[in-house]
Amino acid sequence: MTLKVYADRMSQPSRAVIIFCKLNGIDFEEVRVDLSKRQHLTPEFREINPMKKLPAIVDGRFKLFESHAILIYLACVFPGVADHWYPADLFKRAKIHSVLDWHHSNLRRGAATYVFNSALAPALGMPLNPEVAAEGEKLLSASLAKIESVWLKGKGRFLLGSLQPSIADLSLVCEIMQLEVVDEKDRERILGPHQRVLKWIDDTKNATQPYFDEVHSILSKVKEKLKKLQAERGVSANESIGRTTLHSKM
Amino acid sequence: MTLKVYADRMSQPSRAVIIFCKLNGIDFEEVRVDLSKRQHLTPEFREINPMKKLPAIVDGRFKLFESHAILIYLACVFPGVADHWYPADLFKRAKIHSVLDWHHSNLRRGAATYVFNSALAPALGMPLNPEVAAEGEKLLSASLAKIESVWLKGKGRFLLGSLQPSIADLSLVCEIMQLEVVDEKDRERILGPHQRVLKWIDDTKNATQPYFDEVHSILSKVKEKLKKLQAERGVSANESIGRTTLHSKM
Repeated sequence: MTLKVYADRMSQPSRAVIIFCKLNGIDFEEVRVDLSKRQHLTPEFREINPMKKLPAIVDGRFKLFESHAILIYLACVFPGVADHWYPADLFKRAKIHSVLDWHHSNLRRGAATYVFNSALAPALGMPLNPEVAAEGEKLLSASLAKIESVWLKGKGRFLLGSLQPSIADLSLVCEIMQLEVVDEKDRERILGPHQRVLKWIDDTKNATQPYFDEVHSILSKVKEKLKKLQAERGVSANESIGRTTLHSKM
Repeated sequence: MTLKVYADRMSQPSRAVIIFCKLNGIDFEEVRVDLSKRQHLTPEFREINPMKKLPAIVDGRFKLFESHAILIYLACVFPGVADHWYPADLFKRAKIHSVLDWHHSNLRRGAATYVFNSALAPALGMPLNPEVAAEGEKLLSASLAKIESVWLKGKGRFLLGSLQPSIADLSLVCEIMQLEVVDEKDRERILGPHQRVLKWIDDTKNATQPYFDEVHSILSKVKEKLKKLQAERGVSANESIGRTTLHSKM
């Protein structure tokens, strides 16, 4: 039975899992679970993942959720996945676990909080929250600085001084790519000071083409949609201002 | 060279690593890094863990941080660790990864946010924040409900229906034990509705004695200290009220 990957390409960890499967020639069926239509909250999807989160996989009778656990599982059970993605060497493997564990409460939390509250919320019918966005940006910037000073030292092009990417590179870079949907000047302000991070993003992209760009193409569409929403909000805000002015003149 | 474990027993993941070493007869030296004295922020400790967090280990020339990564490393490289802690079976292992990954942004985030903002902050010279504590409690309670309905089903006494504990049981139970420092009625309100969680905590304690109680004994001391601080704050609050009343009468 073919591996099923339940995903929405709008979800960063979903993208990482899809790219990983494509890169490694893993035969899989991508089952779209549309977050904007709240399909992850349906009773049908709860049978796949009771935590109601994406991505999740079903491999025969085996169900699994949490993207890092999925990437490790796929690297271990599918023949033909090159060792550099999740090395058999226990010391290298331990360091990759350390990066992935750190990711949850640092880069992921910072980036997701910032992007949702500064750009994405209106697309899901929720308001922006600049105060929470600012908190997210602080954690995001601190995380980027740590990636640069701790894991992008040395001669290797990838995290932990490696010459080829691991699942940690893929997971973290997919997270940062979420910044594609925010204003260009905001992205420049956040990523600009981290030149080694920018080079590492490019190196990871190049090492995972053509799938990286293919799977991330959704982000430019979302950006267009957000711009349209913003323009509409701008109009309606002006109308409100107009009405308020009118009121105060009455 | 002996394994060095840099830890403060006030840190939940530090306790999990220390208990794991003791239980499995791993020869180690516990190096106390006192969080209340901000020793984790010193240049010396930054050489051990540039993220300035506990726990961290040094095993010969190999340094590692993040408690889940450490537990997996110890289970893999030290002979004599029973298979149930981190099974060689890839399917069982994947499920344990899934629990541990979920833990970061759910149980850990909820419990740490709640305990810090409802009880622990004054011990580190910071104010309590009831609003943030309430948010933490919400996530904590939702996480406990999920543990019960998703992972404590079936006949096994431990997570994922297992008959013996894994590193996931140890990590998650150590997190919940942090609630020992809050008011008894608050702990009862939060844990009371989750009878299966309470039984699982007891089963995990029993499976890891005498080390579980030994390593957790610090919590009763901290609770005494917090009560004393609270009493002093109570007195000083009354004094302030007295002074305010006096002022308003002047």
